[in-house]
Amino acid sequence: MNSFTFYAPTLFAFGEGEEQRTGELVRRFGGTKVLLVYGGASAKRCGAYDPVTASLKEAGIPWVELSGVQPNPRSGKVYEGIELCRKEGADFLLAIGGGSAIDTAKAIGFGVPYDGDFWDLVAGKLPIEKSLPVGTVLTIAAAGSEGSDSCVITKEEGNLKWGIPRVDVVRPKFSILNPAFTCSLPPFQTACGACDMMIHVLERYFTPTADVGLTDRLCEAVLKTVLDAAPRAIADPADLSARGELMWAGTLAHNNSCGVGRVQDWASHQIEHELSAFYDCAHGAGLAVVVPAWMTFALNNTDPIRFARFAVNVMGCEMDYERPDRTAWEGIRRLREFFRSLGLPVTLSELGAKASDIPAIVEHRKEKGFPFGGYVEIGPREMEEILRLCGE
Amino acid sequence: MNSFTFYAPTLFAFGEGEEQRTGELVRRFGGTKVLLVYGGASAKRCGAYDPVTASLKEAGIPWVELSGVQPNPRSGKVYEGIELCRKEGADFLLAIGGGSAIDTAKAIGFGVPYDGDFWDLVAGKLPIEKSLPVGTVLTIAAAGSEGSDSCVITKEEGNLKWGIPRVDVVRPKFSILNPAFTCSLPPFQTACGACDMMIHVLERYFTPTADVGLTDRLCEAVLKTVLDAAPRAIADPADLSARGELMWAGTLAHNNSCGVGRVQDWASHQIEHELSAFYDCAHGAGLAVVVPAWMTFALNNTDPIRFARFAVNVMGCEMDYERPDRTAWEGIRRLREFFRSLGLPVTLSELGAKASDIPAIVEHRKEKGFPFGGYVEIGPREMEEILRLCGE
Repeated sequence: MNSFTFYAPTLFAFGEGEEQRTGELVRRFGGTKVLLVYGGASAKRCGAYDPVTASLKEAGIPWVELSGVQPNPRSGKVYEGIELCRKEGADFLLAIGGGSAIDTAKAIGFGVPYDGDFWDLVAGKLPIEKSLPVGTVLTIAAAGSEGSDSCVITKEEGNLKWGIPRVDVVRPKFSILNPAFTCSLPPFQTACGACDMMIHVLERYFTPTADVGLTDRLCEAVLKTVLDAAPRAIADPADLSARGELMWAGTLAHNNSCGVGRVQDWASHQIEHELSAFYDCAHGAGLAVVVPAWMTFALNNTDPIRFARFAVNVMGCEMDYERPDRTAWEGIRRLREFFRSLGLPVTLSELGAKASDIPAIVEHRKEKGFPFGGYVEIGPREMEEILRLCGE
Repeated sequence: MNSFTFYAPTLFAFGEGEEQRTGELVRRFGGTKVLLVYGGASAKRCGAYDPVTASLKEAGIPWVELSGVQPNPRSGKVYEGIELCRKEGADFLLAIGGGSAIDTAKAIGFGVPYDGDFWDLVAGKLPIEKSLPVGTVLTIAAAGSEGSDSCVITKEEGNLKWGIPRVDVVRPKFSILNPAFTCSLPPFQTACGACDMMIHVLERYFTPTADVGLTDRLCEAVLKTVLDAAPRAIADPADLSARGELMWAGTLAHNNSCGVGRVQDWASHQIEHELSAFYDCAHGAGLAVVVPAWMTFALNNTDPIRFARFAVNVMGCEMDYERPDRTAWEGIRRLREFFRSLGLPVTLSELGAKASDIPAIVEHRKEKGFPFGGYVEIGPREMEEILRLCGE
């Protein structure tokens, strides 16, 4: 196990009716005027907007609104939010939604106290040292941004979908997790969310670091929970047990409790961000295509043992002790089948992507740079091979 | 899964040399003068004292010392610390040690800002609402107090070993976890620590709450890690891989990440606290005797399925689908054998306790009150039966 610092001071209020604590929690963490960040009608339809604003009202906390955040959230909305925050004197960001609303709120949060262009901080030109406090009311179990130290924004100019260098200062002060808010999610979005959280774990699971038995087992615990709960939530969207397990799994998948003390990979995310930038596809859907291809590539180029472990401990395969590679391949096959069973795309064309775009996609990545990947190093040639392994 | 609030804002600095950050961390969390709390020579022998005080010196942070904290820490030392803190104007508690030093520091921390007798707060007469900040440098992987919301103190008058009502305000601001500091621990203390952390998980694992698949799996992950790492640490005390796994497992076992959203039991702890109060035995050793007896009692009086799950998923038993109770019994047998293999006592006499004291032990518990236990309700009659099941 490597040295690490783990500092995750987010207060999680989980369960039915916890949104009634919004006003009290904003106040507890120093907010006196709120910028409320959300997408659109779904924040109201899911049942979150009304009790959240009622709670602010009851606590005597005024707010202004920034709505219209889109999936794969854009820098334009962040600039708009920074300006609005400054003009209105808002000192607390409150997101209602999933990763898009939360990441927009986070970026506004560290953008407001910075004099220059917030994109400097996304691009890592300067470290993110402070932020206005951020709170969240989660309505989609997926991105894990409600507890994470990260944030991903797309810059329209150049079509750059980039994550910030991870830093604890962007972690939300509090996150309200009421699984009932996710019961109105359509099956496809539920599936995308389940895939997203599984991949947050897998990016940590595939590591070259030795002696990480505890975090390996924690990863497997979260993965098995998603395997169990996601099909139940899709079969019965109102299954609160499944929704609750998925919601907490999504948070643990990305608050780094599964990833401390180990080199992490993140190559699949880097590749998927390019697909999202090109095709504006759902992040979870893009990952369902990329990850089995990345696994195929990695298994072709590394020792099969970690993949065999994944196959046995997560996907329920029987271990072939004489040919662990067979077990490893079977694990990847089952994972792809699982994604397919959830209704996710598993090839480029199912995602709406084209093999003929591959060279341009790889070229576009050069802006952010190569190589990447902590388990297998990925340069342009490897990225191209992985995209071809996605299948047409 | 039940509603819950999870707020664990402790910064963990894990790894070799992290103690060199002590001064910086004390300052970050507002300390300007430290009360250094520890036991005795072992804080120096294990290698922690010198670099920690060097780091304070380098950061220009003065300190005063309170040493002589004993296992099963006493209220006398807490009163002494409260007085010393006030007299010297110390505004930060820094513990070097395990649960005893940390719990003493915690109690001083909430005792100082309270005008009356700190025992009022332990006994729950008033809620604990504030505390001086506490930091820890861990030298024994066991109690989990370095990340927990709890604290156990023994009051000499009446011989009361009581835990406070759990509350987030007592969680340390930071904890430094350098596994190398635990390499000088004798095998018996290593074993007691391993048992203590396993039981912190088991007290959460045995629950009447339904739909807790994720936290069940997290519990199993921590338990399996201890089963794997403890024998390695005892066989080779300098095995840093095993020491590191144990150290982080001990923290996760008790920061409540394994226990959110579920009713917990804690009956074995209540019973063991009486044994510690009577015989001043090591907490982990007392638990090794009590827990298999509690499990025997609980299995005799409840559905065997959860015990069978424990037997299969943790102790590696084969499931007997026709007779799950057989699997359940085998799991308890293996757990007791595991404790024995670590060199722990598994009967009252091995602990130095006497069956003839049982009525007096049960009587003494009446001061704190009955019933207790979240999985099976324990009154005086049940407590007596469990103590008899410990075996002479």
